[in-house]
Amino acid sequence: MARKTRVGLWLIGVGGRVGSAVALGIAALARGKTETTGLVSELPVFSKSGLVPPASMIVGGHELRKTSILDGAKEARMKAGLFSDDLIRSVSSDLRRFERNVRAGTLLGVSRTVAQIAKSGRGRRDRTPSAAMKRLGGDLASFRRRHRLDHVVVVNLGSSEPKVRKSSMHESWSAMSRVLARKSAGAIPASSLYALAAIESGCCYIDFTPSTGLDLPALRERAEQLGSLYGGRDGKTGETLVKSVLAPMFAMRNLDVLSWTGQNLLGNRDGQVLRDPKTKASKIVGKDAVVRSIVGRSVETHVAIDFVRSLDDWKVAWDYVHFSGFLGTKMAMQFTWQGCDSMLAAPLVIDLARFAAFEMSRGASGPMKHLAFFFKNPIAVRDHDLASQFHRLVRHIVAHPTQ
Amino acid sequence: MARKTRVGLWLIGVGGRVGSAVALGIAALARGKTETTGLVSELPVFSKSGLVPPASMIVGGHELRKTSILDGAKEARMKAGLFSDDLIRSVSSDLRRFERNVRAGTLLGVSRTVAQIAKSGRGRRDRTPSAAMKRLGGDLASFRRRHRLDHVVVVNLGSSEPKVRKSSMHESWSAMSRVLARKSAGAIPASSLYALAAIESGCCYIDFTPSTGLDLPALRERAEQLGSLYGGRDGKTGETLVKSVLAPMFAMRNLDVLSWTGQNLLGNRDGQVLRDPKTKASKIVGKDAVVRSIVGRSVETHVAIDFVRSLDDWKVAWDYVHFSGFLGTKMAMQFTWQGCDSMLAAPLVIDLARFAAFEMSRGASGPMKHLAFFFKNPIAVRDHDLASQFHRLVRHIVAHPTQ
Amino acid sequence: MARKTRVGLWLIGVGGRVGSAVALGIAALARGKTETTGLVSELPVFSKSGLVPPASMIVGGHELRKTSILDGAKEARMKAGLFSDDLIRSVSSDLRRFERNVRAGTLLGVSRTVAQIAKSGRGRRDRTPSAAMKRLGGDLASFRRRHRLDHVVVVNLGSSEPKVRKSSMHESWSAMSRVLARKSAGAIPASSLYALAAIESGCCYIDFTPSTGLDLPALRERAEQLGSLYGGRDGKTGETLVKSVLAPMFAMRNLDVLSWTGQNLLGNRDGQVLRDPKTKASKIVGKDAVVRSIVGRSVETHVAIDFVRSLDDWKVAWDYVHFSGFLGTKMAMQFTWQGCDSMLAAPLVIDLARFAAFEMSRGASGPMKHLAFFFKNPIAVRDHDLASQFHRLVRHIVAHPTQ
Amino acid sequence: MARKTRVGLWLIGVGGRVGSAVALGIAALARGKTETTGLVSELPVFSKSGLVPPASMIVGGHELRKTSILDGAKEARMKAGLFSDDLIRSVSSDLRRFERNVRAGTLLGVSRTVAQIAKSGRGRRDRTPSAAMKRLGGDLASFRRRHRLDHVVVVNLGSSEPKVRKSSMHESWSAMSRVLARKSAGAIPASSLYALAAIESGCCYIDFTPSTGLDLPALRERAEQLGSLYGGRDGKTGETLVKSVLAPMFAMRNLDVLSWTGQNLLGNRDGQVLRDPKTKASKIVGKDAVVRSIVGRSVETHVAIDFVRSLDDWKVAWDYVHFSGFLGTKMAMQFTWQGCDSMLAAPLVIDLARFAAFEMSRGASGPMKHLAFFFKNPIAVRDHDLASQFHRLVRHIVAHPTQ
Repeated sequence: MARKTRVGLWLIGVGGRVGSAVALGIAALARGKTETTGLVSELPVFSKSGLVPPASMIVGGHELRKTSILDGAKEARMKAGLFSDDLIRSVSSDLRRFERNVRAGTLLGVSRTVAQIAKSGRGRRDRTPSAAMKRLGGDLASFRRRHRLDHVVVVNLGSSEPKVRKSSMHESWSAMSRVLARKSAGAIPASSLYALAAIESGCCYIDFTPSTGLDLPALRERAEQLGSLYGGRDGKTGETLVKSVLAPMFAMRNLDVLSWTGQNLLGNRDGQVLRDPKTKASKIVGKDAVVRSIVGRSVETHVAIDFVRSLDDWKVAWDYVHFSGFLGTKMAMQFTWQGCDSMLAAPLVIDLARFAAFEMSRGASGPMKHLAFFFKNPIAVRDHDLASQFHRLVRHIVAHPTQ
Repeated sequence: MARKTRVGLWLIGVGGRVGSAVALGIAALARGKTETTGLVSELPVFSKSGLVPPASMIVGGHELRKTSILDGAKEARMKAGLFSDDLIRSVSSDLRRFERNVRAGTLLGVSRTVAQIAKSGRGRRDRTPSAAMKRLGGDLASFRRRHRLDHVVVVNLGSSEPKVRKSSMHESWSAMSRVLARKSAGAIPASSLYALAAIESGCCYIDFTPSTGLDLPALRERAEQLGSLYGGRDGKTGETLVKSVLAPMFAMRNLDVLSWTGQNLLGNRDGQVLRDPKTKASKIVGKDAVVRSIVGRSVETHVAIDFVRSLDDWKVAWDYVHFSGFLGTKMAMQFTWQGCDSMLAAPLVIDLARFAAFEMSRGASGPMKHLAFFFKNPIAVRDHDLASQFHRLVRHIVAHPTQ
Repeated sequence: MARKTRVGLWLIGVGGRVGSAVALGIAALARGKTETTGLVSELPVFSKSGLVPPASMIVGGHELRKTSILDGAKEARMKAGLFSDDLIRSVSSDLRRFERNVRAGTLLGVSRTVAQIAKSGRGRRDRTPSAAMKRLGGDLASFRRRHRLDHVVVVNLGSSEPKVRKSSMHESWSAMSRVLARKSAGAIPASSLYALAAIESGCCYIDFTPSTGLDLPALRERAEQLGSLYGGRDGKTGETLVKSVLAPMFAMRNLDVLSWTGQNLLGNRDGQVLRDPKTKASKIVGKDAVVRSIVGRSVETHVAIDFVRSLDDWKVAWDYVHFSGFLGTKMAMQFTWQGCDSMLAAPLVIDLARFAAFEMSRGASGPMKHLAFFFKNPIAVRDHDLASQFHRLVRHIVAHPTQ
Repeated sequence: MARKTRVGLWLIGVGGRVGSAVALGIAALARGKTETTGLVSELPVFSKSGLVPPASMIVGGHELRKTSILDGAKEARMKAGLFSDDLIRSVSSDLRRFERNVRAGTLLGVSRTVAQIAKSGRGRRDRTPSAAMKRLGGDLASFRRRHRLDHVVVVNLGSSEPKVRKSSMHESWSAMSRVLARKSAGAIPASSLYALAAIESGCCYIDFTPSTGLDLPALRERAEQLGSLYGGRDGKTGETLVKSVLAPMFAMRNLDVLSWTGQNLLGNRDGQVLRDPKTKASKIVGKDAVVRSIVGRSVETHVAIDFVRSLDDWKVAWDYVHFSGFLGTKMAMQFTWQGCDSMLAAPLVIDLARFAAFEMSRGASGPMKHLAFFFKNPIAVRDHDLASQFHRLVRHIVAHPTQ
């Protein structure tokens, strides 16, 4: 990838904790105000792959609430005790510059919880899915034009949605395209509208959440027609990350995992949204799959998520693994993970944008299977073993010529 | 490996907790009285490699204390609450049969702590290293002859020794062979005497402890002269096993591990021996290396070991990992491992014997690097990443033709 | 209390894990086959209070399932690895003797989950509440007569019930007594039938569960009329016990508890019953009250209970306490409790029987407030601080003359 | 205590983390810039006792290093992420005012580690103990005079010292006073020099560390002669605090604690000083005593302390309690405490000053036994049960009339 390539990173939910951390991070990296810790794309193995430097990345996005990127960063500073006042000051002009790229998101197809949170915000109630797609797509096109961007990568960081109730309209693009112009097409979730707007505008779409996005036969069909590049779903940042190395350990040692119970406490907006039982269910499916896929279907797994306001952006996860060893001996392992959600997610979003731009530069299309390393529910990949996902990523990037 | 191949498994310290568990396990497996949980060699990937079945394995060994294998099993039942009275009963005739293969170990070159534990036992104070080697080697030869064994694998399960103070006599086989017949050759630790007896008798020698064994230039030279097969050192059963998957996780995500502190509580004889500061030091070196080799030299690492009698054979390890992520955010992970030491070690010893016999069948010699997966300090291998060690093992075994 | 006093201990659910452990424990104590560890009543401070010795206690009870006390003990041995075959053998004649005092429980008023578990057991579907009370009361009277007992203490160890939906019939004894003879009086839970049978027969009734029992105005009124002695509710055995000393610590140090989250994993029948959301709700209320009552209403509390079959009788609880200290500094404490439920409950049941017999000897009546130390939801007591509950118990017992 | 009473709080080690936090806290409280969380003396039960308000407290102290109070606060802000820049700004004038009361400490009698840390600082190498006492006492007198203070409370927050090797000179005041003027009196630790200076100047002396201070027969004798008021030793802030409520829980339930193992990780100067094995030994004695005194001498206890630089002022302690319950069942409990050392200690220092001033107002002398609640090794008190210590404190304060 040539030095001069300019990449736009468009975030759905840009004013949230992760979104503002991504913007802050890109600005801080570009100005040399922070280390590259946490960025996978900065590992030495990728140093010759010509990934786009942060200084060539421009941030924009859609947002429902009135909050600005700078506000998001300051809130993180105050409530979660992250970074320093100095760091924010040193990049506040950049954040204001990015802020000018922020546009109103759509209220069409959002869950009740999100509608509640976004009340009296800047979200628009578009008349029809078509109208929403057109407006959102226009924002992307104007972003690209205004900044003379070579590639635009759209990453969904919006609140998790409940699982969509599938109907025949989701099954084919012809069925779906027929309903898009109708007013009452409530069955298309907001994440899918953003996804459609992205691929119709020639952008890459990556879902960092467990929401529907492109995960409908109709949308996959459309992505194929358009030769779109896409990836997802549900960023693997904490507890599930640990599971994806521990479960293989038990498997490699032929230890019999009897039960694996996880308790997740979190206090940010994500946790607030997850209080809705349906939304929580869609999240837990992803968290649960890792262990079962690696140690076998017979294991008892339990994943609980509790909203604990006092934790703010800090997530505490406790896992208890009960296993049986030689001669039927029952043993146990437990771990507690205390991580800051947005600080774990933000660098991965930057990584994803860089790896996606790399693919766009070489004209690739379809699902980016080599990015399974980053996701709880990798599209089109069944392998949940982190080490093997990592090797797949490295092989893929290193195999392709640097421009 | 043909069905009829008969393999002898000779254990240094056969009457200890691990030794008696190995004997009990082999007998129970041969009689179909237990599952194969915990045996790596029973993973489906090895099912066509023709590894020797437990029913074709005969156990023998050296011991210093008066205890019998059956006593060892009963003690584990009583004190640590392992397996069941029924299981012991169902194989007690086998254990008595194995007991007839037990011979007196040597008191030459043992540490003060071991001498204390072995007081009024059956250990012999051999006059010279040569005399000891000759006697011990005779035991091996007679074991092989009596049971018409195709291969004999010697595994050291004896108490950990303090690190040897190296001198010129350790540097070459010619120097060492000159002192072997002298009475005062105190600088050769017991583990090295057993190792020498093993390789001089054409057996494979594997060190499951951090003791010196073959780890002296003089002995490596001798092993090369004889074309010996060997492996080790220090079985990776619990805390270090977990480290060997967690440390790569931090590395793959470019997270900066600031400090990694481990506390190990154990109450068995191993723990008792480790109360000696010098012996503990030799053990800790191995436990520490894993993290540093994977996440970098600059990390602060601390490993503590405490003898807690009430735990008996149960080992409790607590690790606290302090790491820094994006934008300098400090986070933490901790885990507690509660495992039964002998039940974790015993199946690995059986695995090692089977994999070693596999090598002997195909006439291999030198260090078995592909067994790094099993050890804290793998001989001639720097890779401490468990997943990569596992793939090396699989590739090696699967690559070689089944007999 | 004179040496010759004979006390009957009648357990609702005598064949369950706790019930059989109580029976086993009393027999083992009487025969001097075990230590008194875990028995509060054996603390030195009570040594001169003349509490009834285990040798003078006779066990009987009601049961719904077909299991025998001896079977219960053997199941605990096999599945949870408790005590030893030898211990069971040494008291099996006693357990068979106690078994002759076991009678059929009632299926009237049990929850759907319990009905399921008790299917094809020995439980009787009594026609009306009156009929059930008469039959159950007859069992108690005959137990007392047959063994020439001075006092009978009934302890409810049955499965937790969902909270009863209160109606006017629960408000006064006259209202309730009118409906007892009617067939369709489904609104009286089984625990209340046992409680009524107990007090009508002049027995002391203690509820070791969160079920309704005497906790209805109508029944309290009846207990007062009869001058009954009673106590409860919901034995404080593990996680809540720890909370009842930790919460006061935070309070005494003026530390501001922000949130207190608990996760309970358990695999026994109690856990199975608690899978029913309504039953779980009734249990959680009790577990939650302790923290709020001590550190204040404003704290966020969360208590989760998950049924993890592999744990059997072992309960694992993890609590995370997030608190704020000086200058608004947020800190955290977490603990993991790994206890065997029946082994923690059984000695407390014996304690309760001894302390209750002590009260009966001196002709006391009403709620035994000094037993708050043993319960999550102590009747008529708001103090949840363990230390203060303990001093109340000691003061009460020591204040009364030894017979 | 009248409103107008002015109290001086003189801190040995005023520029350290705890010292600067005390100064910051008093200033912030006086200006109403922070809550009273963490202050025991602000519990409602003491609201009518007329304790001196923070606004009437003046801070001064001795220091060896060149650091200022304001620097200490800023360092805590930067390295440990405590409080906010705003808070520091709002009281920086107060901290500068307090700074004018800071005087040079003595290098006489400090440990080698402290001498190293204090190198090229402001500490004075006084010629003799007498000279040191005179100089230090002069600082106290001038502090009192300058600020027209009613009472001066000296609290030792200096680095922990190794245990003193006792000799005959420590046995009586007459023996000791003979050597004070001699140059070579190396056997008198610095903490004792400060203690002597304090009591000779009519101040109250409280030791918040495990150092010797007044804990020598000679000094106790002198304190008695002078009618001094004193208290200590070793503030109970974290792990030991938890032990002092958990150990009584096991005792009250007659559970048999088999072993209690603690691991303490800390990264502040206190931890650095504790790397010296002798100093560590003096600290561990105190941490260990609590459990043994409550659950009995026979329990195995282990306390480890590791210096982990990355933690800075945060202390992580992990305790593993192995206990036996009914019928010999072994169970376990573990906890992890993650607290900020200086934020836990500072409010207790303020509490101690207020309670000491309360005693001085009423003319009390001798050891303040009712302050056992605050210490690991309470002077002249054997009771380590936190609840009972708390009640003693409340009874004592409430019993005495408010002025």
